[in-house]
Amino acid sequence: MRTKDFKSVALKYKTIFFDAFGVLKNHKGIIPGVEKTFDFLDENGINYFVVTNDSSRGPEGLADGYIRRGIKSITPDKIISSGMLARDWLSLKIKEGTVAYLGTGDSAHYVETAGLDTLAIRDLDLEDIDHIKCLVFLDDEGFDWNQDINKVINLLRKRNMPVVVANTDIHYPVSKNDVAVAIGGISDLVEEVLGKKFIRFGKPDAQMFMFAYERACEMKPVKKNEILMVGDTLYTDIIGGNKFGVDTALVLSGNTLPEMAKVRITSSGIIPNFICDSVIID
Amino acid sequence: MRTKDFKSVALKYKTIFFDAFGVLKNHKGIIPGVEKTFDFLDENGINYFVVTNDSSRGPEGLADGYIRRGIKSITPDKIISSGMLARDWLSLKIKEGTVAYLGTGDSAHYVETAGLDTLAIRDLDLEDIDHIKCLVFLDDEGFDWNQDINKVINLLRKRNMPVVVANTDIHYPVSKNDVAVAIGGISDLVEEVLGKKFIRFGKPDAQMFMFAYERACEMKPVKKNEILMVGDTLYTDIIGGNKFGVDTALVLSGNTLPEMAKVRITSSGIIPNFICDSVIID
Amino acid sequence: MRTKDFKSVALKYKTIFFDAFGVLKNHKGIIPGVEKTFDFLDENGINYFVVTNDSSRGPEGLADGYIRRGIKSITPDKIISSGMLARDWLSLKIKEGTVAYLGTGDSAHYVETAGLDTLAIRDLDLEDIDHIKCLVFLDDEGFDWNQDINKVINLLRKRNMPVVVANTDIHYPVSKNDVAVAIGGISDLVEEVLGKKFIRFGKPDAQMFMFAYERACEMKPVKKNEILMVGDTLYTDIIGGNKFGVDTALVLSGNTLPEMAKVRITSSGIIPNFICDSVIID
Amino acid sequence: MRTKDFKSVALKYKTIFFDAFGVLKNHKGIIPGVEKTFDFLDENGINYFVVTNDSSRGPEGLADGYIRRGIKSITPDKIISSGMLARDWLSLKIKEGTVAYLGTGDSAHYVETAGLDTLAIRDLDLEDIDHIKCLVFLDDEGFDWNQDINKVINLLRKRNMPVVVANTDIHYPVSKNDVAVAIGGISDLVEEVLGKKFIRFGKPDAQMFMFAYERACEMKPVKKNEILMVGDTLYTDIIGGNKFGVDTALVLSGNTLPEMAKVRITSSGIIPNFICDSVIID
Repeated sequence: MRTKDFKSVALKYKTIFFDAFGVLKNHKGIIPGVEKTFDFLDENGINYFVVTNDSSRGPEGLADGYIRRGIKSITPDKIISSGMLARDWLSLKIKEGTVAYLGTGDSAHYVETAGLDTLAIRDLDLEDIDHIKCLVFLDDEGFDWNQDINKVINLLRKRNMPVVVANTDIHYPVSKNDVAVAIGGISDLVEEVLGKKFIRFGKPDAQMFMFAYERACEMKPVKKNEILMVGDTLYTDIIGGNKFGVDTALVLSGNTLPEMAKVRITSSGIIPNFICDSVIID
Repeated sequence: MRTKDFKSVALKYKTIFFDAFGVLKNHKGIIPGVEKTFDFLDENGINYFVVTNDSSRGPEGLADGYIRRGIKSITPDKIISSGMLARDWLSLKIKEGTVAYLGTGDSAHYVETAGLDTLAIRDLDLEDIDHIKCLVFLDDEGFDWNQDINKVINLLRKRNMPVVVANTDIHYPVSKNDVAVAIGGISDLVEEVLGKKFIRFGKPDAQMFMFAYERACEMKPVKKNEILMVGDTLYTDIIGGNKFGVDTALVLSGNTLPEMAKVRITSSGIIPNFICDSVIID
Repeated sequence: MRTKDFKSVALKYKTIFFDAFGVLKNHKGIIPGVEKTFDFLDENGINYFVVTNDSSRGPEGLADGYIRRGIKSITPDKIISSGMLARDWLSLKIKEGTVAYLGTGDSAHYVETAGLDTLAIRDLDLEDIDHIKCLVFLDDEGFDWNQDINKVINLLRKRNMPVVVANTDIHYPVSKNDVAVAIGGISDLVEEVLGKKFIRFGKPDAQMFMFAYERACEMKPVKKNEILMVGDTLYTDIIGGNKFGVDTALVLSGNTLPEMAKVRITSSGIIPNFICDSVIID
Repeated sequence: MRTKDFKSVALKYKTIFFDAFGVLKNHKGIIPGVEKTFDFLDENGINYFVVTNDSSRGPEGLADGYIRRGIKSITPDKIISSGMLARDWLSLKIKEGTVAYLGTGDSAHYVETAGLDTLAIRDLDLEDIDHIKCLVFLDDEGFDWNQDINKVINLLRKRNMPVVVANTDIHYPVSKNDVAVAIGGISDLVEEVLGKKFIRFGKPDAQMFMFAYERACEMKPVKKNEILMVGDTLYTDIIGGNKFGVDTALVLSGNTLPEMAKVRITSSGIIPNFICDSVIID
């Protein structure tokens, strides 16, 4: 499988959307050399955004992770997270009452900035639920799975309410070889037990790309065919980008291993415009 | 289950999106009295669009069905079909070559107006496929299912190419009691056999609502909370509208029977803002 | 929906298979009056078995729950549990090494009686896994979900081995209104994250009914059409019994509520031979 | 991936179950040299059966295909087809009335030998369905897909009845490179449209293996660990055999290509006891 140099690919576009895990970061943190890629983009007037299914913290928190590691140009306004879609949805649709959530206090940021009262599921009393207007799945950490997953199921059996999943990913890497179940996977289990349908935000869904596109256009008008989506996962980044109508580049620095790329593209029918080893520019 | 009068609901909004089947039409044609609803909306300055998973003919053809039955205000620019999303996608992503399709000649309109050459699957020679750049599922009519479904499967086994499904519906009504498999159902079978992932357009996907929203804003700027989506199906119209952030009204004149509405809402967790018997205004 | 008296139904058969939860027991314990049903069966020479997706304890432990509540005739040889199929499978297929498990010490009984060494996942060292030959999902209790579910996923990523699910149920009742995720639901989540296929034991699978049928024939030869399966769940007890070729009776004392029985039978196409309010005989 | 010589593997067992397509046959007919394998098994007193998801014709018709090509020892009593399970089920459960079917006249053999009246769906009058007691999916040929698939859907909407699928395969090979949708795939589409659950017979289901096991034991008692299942497909032959408790050998002459075997075993977690290039003995 022949790969292309990321530099030559990047120069064809005015705006680039980057997935985070497997593209800019891995289990050890920022991939060494990524800062030079952003210098290169800045020098060439190419705009960029990080488009991530990560609702574990707000855009400031997410940006801070890049800035502290020397990529000063990834400011909070460059971050598009699935949590932001959840926050906007809550602002628009939930007018009053309390929003219950599964996740850390950091992740509850998205509910709070929507101007709503929050209640961690662990603090919920199942006998006093009339004021709960919505449930949000935010992060896989910050709660006891045994207790709180069952509590969520019984809350939703007692009271019909909208349920929002702020990150559709099923798992995420935690070390070189290990993964952990993500909140999207936990929400799938709850959906299966209940037979209900939740409202889900995150790639590959078009709403995520639309949100990023609108943000990009606010900064500098751009056409869809002038945008490149760069990701390591065919089933989220690439099919999502393809469907939204932007070009796509698969990088082999994350989920899709170099020796499997060809097989996976053929068997899935999900075809990126380009394949690059990584986003590193030599 | 208490229902609301559609008139009083409609007056709360500036723009209304209507599903077609089960809301404006049924197996006998336009539902009697619907023309008065549109007169009422016109008189009250409420804008409206028909938002439909129908790619069997172009917007002119679809509008014509309303105009000929006396609803003159549903002009082609009021029609938003999933076929139009497929057409825009083809314009953006397929630059040259031939697009093979399953469907009628009428449905091929969407490919032709994207400026591309079309080839019905029945006319395809499986030994001469290098020029085929894309396959589109358009309509369940106009081809021999035995022969052409198998031909599509073998085409996609021989050559990896993007595949677009222009209507995600699985079935549609053909008479009072009878239904027929829709092209979305046929595409599910082909996807299952191949294990590939296709690009699908249609409600409940956000892209469909975004397209309608952009068209609405071009005519007259409107906010999401000033829009109502009216539909007869929880799993497409209502969950799609809810997720996009507009308000929703379920009507009981189609897929969701009056005696089942409460059970279905509770068991699915898909909650409309309003329930109305129909869109008829007395 | 007209129901039949259980007495008149029971008299048509030589052997009856009873589901446990929702038929003989509920969240409060044995359903009052059930002991008279077993007296009646004994008096009329009708043989019976409890056929249950329960691998939380061995047949002695399960029988003990009935005996202590006065149903002395439900001895361990009357119990057919999905855990027993798992145990037989382990005896047949795993010759040496250690079997890792998720569940309580009680549930590990099934592995121990297969003559194999057991290791609770919490005690597993992911750096020392060469001796682990098989993983078994036994019970939803006895472990920390956050930690041990992720540990199982990483064990199976590091080493390819057979995985057995000893209970396919997704949830089970814990009180009048509340349910809890069962180990079958947890195994679904792990299967989804890994994309692997596990070996699953439990109704509606035919192997469960075959096992019960063989046990019944050992005691007293019986033909399939002389057997009745009694259950509260269409998707496990009834479809499983129908497919295996025995007659089936749906009772309305558990999962399937009286007011929903007709709708559920029509919409699922799963048709019991009889519907009874409960197994209680007046 | 190291493969073993089939001869040395076969000698370890008393009875061998062979899948048909991809193991004994391919698109050109019987794989050359297979006759010598059966001579070898006969010489060594190893019993064998063909265990196939094929309900296109009766056991006599299926055996005839081997006999005419010189494998005289594959007599009808050596054939175990999923159609035979369907036939036994019909004998047991349908006492009177007519069984409607999708398939060829040859495939209807299974219904006729159950002593029941048959009616091809094309000959069904949807206004006269009171005498139809059951529907069977038998073969993908012998009917018009457009018309008769929709007719089946409307039959099942009008009248709730048991539905039997006599072959769960989704597709089958028709030439070196081409496949066709099998009746199992068509039944999946109908199930999806209706939301109903059908009764399905065929590998990997345990009932198929139980049926073969009982037949084998009638001829000559044998233990499960003295039986080998030989197949080309991990998801039917191998996982089914593994679960039933017999040993399994994957051959690389059909669905699973030599270069993909290792990847597929690792990613699926379905582990055969042996891998052989084919069943050919040199």
